[in-house]
Amino acid sequence: MNSVIISIGNELLSGSENTNASWIARSLNASGIAVGKIFTIPDDYKTIIDYIDKAFEAATIVILTGGLGPTSDDKTKKALCAYFKCGLRLCDVSLRQVEKIFRDRGLAVTQINKKQAEVPDICTVIHNLNGTAPGLWFDSGEKTLVAMPGVPFEMKMMFDNFVIPQLKVKYKLPLIYSKTILTQGIGESYLCDMLTEWENSIPHGVDLAYLPSPGLVKIVLTASSRHVSNPENVVNNLVATLEPIISEYIFGYDNQTLEDIIAAMLIKRNATLSTAESCTGGYLAHLITSRPGSSEYYKGSVIAYSNEIKEKWLQVDKTLLDTYGAVSEQVVKQMAVNVRRIMDTTFGISVSGIAGPGGATPAKPVGTVWIAVASDKDVVSRMFQMGENRMYNIKKSSLTALNMLRKLISTYQA
Amino acid sequence: MNSVIISIGNELLSGSENTNASWIARSLNASGIAVGKIFTIPDDYKTIIDYIDKAFEAATIVILTGGLGPTSDDKTKKALCAYFKCGLRLCDVSLRQVEKIFRDRGLAVTQINKKQAEVPDICTVIHNLNGTAPGLWFDSGEKTLVAMPGVPFEMKMMFDNFVIPQLKVKYKLPLIYSKTILTQGIGESYLCDMLTEWENSIPHGVDLAYLPSPGLVKIVLTASSRHVSNPENVVNNLVATLEPIISEYIFGYDNQTLEDIIAAMLIKRNATLSTAESCTGGYLAHLITSRPGSSEYYKGSVIAYSNEIKEKWLQVDKTLLDTYGAVSEQVVKQMAVNVRRIMDTTFGISVSGIAGPGGATPAKPVGTVWIAVASDKDVVSRMFQMGENRMYNIKKSSLTALNMLRKLISTYQA
Repeated sequence: MNSVIISIGNELLSGSENTNASWIARSLNASGIAVGKIFTIPDDYKTIIDYIDKAFEAATIVILTGGLGPTSDDKTKKALCAYFKCGLRLCDVSLRQVEKIFRDRGLAVTQINKKQAEVPDICTVIHNLNGTAPGLWFDSGEKTLVAMPGVPFEMKMMFDNFVIPQLKVKYKLPLIYSKTILTQGIGESYLCDMLTEWENSIPHGVDLAYLPSPGLVKIVLTASSRHVSNPENVVNNLVATLEPIISEYIFGYDNQTLEDIIAAMLIKRNATLSTAESCTGGYLAHLITSRPGSSEYYKGSVIAYSNEIKEKWLQVDKTLLDTYGAVSEQVVKQMAVNVRRIMDTTFGISVSGIAGPGGATPAKPVGTVWIAVASDKDVVSRMFQMGENRMYNIKKSSLTALNMLRKLISTYQA
Repeated sequence: MNSVIISIGNELLSGSENTNASWIARSLNASGIAVGKIFTIPDDYKTIIDYIDKAFEAATIVILTGGLGPTSDDKTKKALCAYFKCGLRLCDVSLRQVEKIFRDRGLAVTQINKKQAEVPDICTVIHNLNGTAPGLWFDSGEKTLVAMPGVPFEMKMMFDNFVIPQLKVKYKLPLIYSKTILTQGIGESYLCDMLTEWENSIPHGVDLAYLPSPGLVKIVLTASSRHVSNPENVVNNLVATLEPIISEYIFGYDNQTLEDIIAAMLIKRNATLSTAESCTGGYLAHLITSRPGSSEYYKGSVIAYSNEIKEKWLQVDKTLLDTYGAVSEQVVKQMAVNVRRIMDTTFGISVSGIAGPGGATPAKPVGTVWIAVASDKDVVSRMFQMGENRMYNIKKSSLTALNMLRKLISTYQA
């Protein structure tokens, strides 16, 4: 099954990121529909008709976004009516949605906005719960064209709730099963090396992908019922043989995040957390607090960017700072132990390092980071080389710290 | 002058973001070259030839990226040789670059890598200082095709240093002048309202755009020598008449950030800063410390996510917390004054609010945020309604706090 995506919008040709096309491509691929091409074209009547034609030459399914807004809808709708040789009709449900949205905003509906409820008379209307422009589904024999507004959260809701389910029914799409294994603390090439032998056991028709990002690597296994008889079983069996090989690096699966996993662990144990950051400068706290409800288990942080604050607020011994420096095992351990004690939490995390580009010494190059995690019984510390890029360094250090905490909590007996 | 961008890569059809195309589109537009279409196509010999043809039907300039890597270069180069009816030759400079890169990595050059130095014999080689695959520039009468590798930092360097300057020479491109005015503290629609009359003074041929993002709105004015005789003068005169109308909202110009502006103000005054965050949860500190060299003026932060920490570490009176609540003028003022005093800095910032989705009361809905900034002489506080989206709320609150600090510093007499 093959598709083409058409993105309509002058702003996309001026340099706005086309996040809709990549999102739709991921969603189609995950449902077993290959994307053959993506056309990004201007809001122009003749060009739209021309490229619908080109798209249908190459594919069975055409997904089109943009150009359905109140100011520009004439062009795309007019082009669709011309292409499918049909007229417009007023859709009552869409009109009520337009009226509702304007009423909610305390505004009167203008004539232009009412035109949003006019739809090509041969299409099926996809109702837009998040906005005023309805989506349009055209059956053309075996072929299908779907037109949706370009506003991402309007488009995504229609696509997930209507378009994908309908495509599955119409095209009897294969069953696709995918599992993501989340790893931390090991680079992509080392993972590949460890998994060389295991990779040889992957049957034909199962896809394997390594997706690295700062501080973690995702391993994605995907199988389709087109190629294997029970995709879910095949993938889960492969995951079961993979796990023992790299168990120490796996922290979760699929859409989990380290923040979510730690949140669940802390809530389950009725435990609390505090942090003491130096080189990560608040990013670790930001990761933790980006999660709604984090105030349940997170009490706070001291960002000790200067040694003075490390001494005064975190009660780090001046002699340790003078003897070993702020980026040292001795100091980072004391930071974790003290922030836990002073903030009166079950666990404490501390990070101290050289984010760069300044601050390095021959013995401690840019990227040297010490991390410690502490409970009332234990304190674990480790040194890392995080590399020279400041933002990469900050992100990787924060995720590494969260993973060290995850390991500490998992073996902790209150 | 019109162009088409061709992005080659199977990964782009599987859902990887096509950041190259939007970056190139911005760069072309900024140089006065319109982008008519963007084609995203697979690594396929026939498709590449086909779409080069389609691109040249529509445009004078074709910019192509991807498919030049060591494993896939045969396809794109073969397609280019077929399209331009030419053969391959070995480029000595490119071969030395391939050998250098491998020597730097301590690796031997394989036969496959040496093939990277083979280039179509009619093209001009664009040397790749950041990688092994050279870029290729083809003159075809008045038309031009440029092929570059898809690795962003390799492509960007070639594009900025060779492609854009060469296009300017070949096509005698117009002079484009653009100025961005950065505003904070006012929404896009209110800005538009305030500037209605001023907008009428914009001469034909000058473009005006409003670009909103969480916490700030950019106003971009662009003029081309195609339409006005002195673009720089025309734009700067418009900026001069705009400034008095919205002066209280302007914090900077072009690529400046609030973090950079504040950094410069603090360094100039030999002043220091500390912060006390509640609802922003470390994001404000992260913004400040994402800037290299921030340890010169930033001492640290207390992230007081619980009232206990506000009392113990920031010495907020329990009676104030009990009487007015943590999200109140009284508490946020004390946080700013105390963090400044305890951390011994020239200025202090504090933020306390309800980031959501939990924590709201009828009197203090989600999005209620109090911000205070303090010096030894003054403390200024203000309440805001930041809206219901948690991340938006966090980002907008952090930028708003930085802008309040900017205003305080600008009127501060030590």
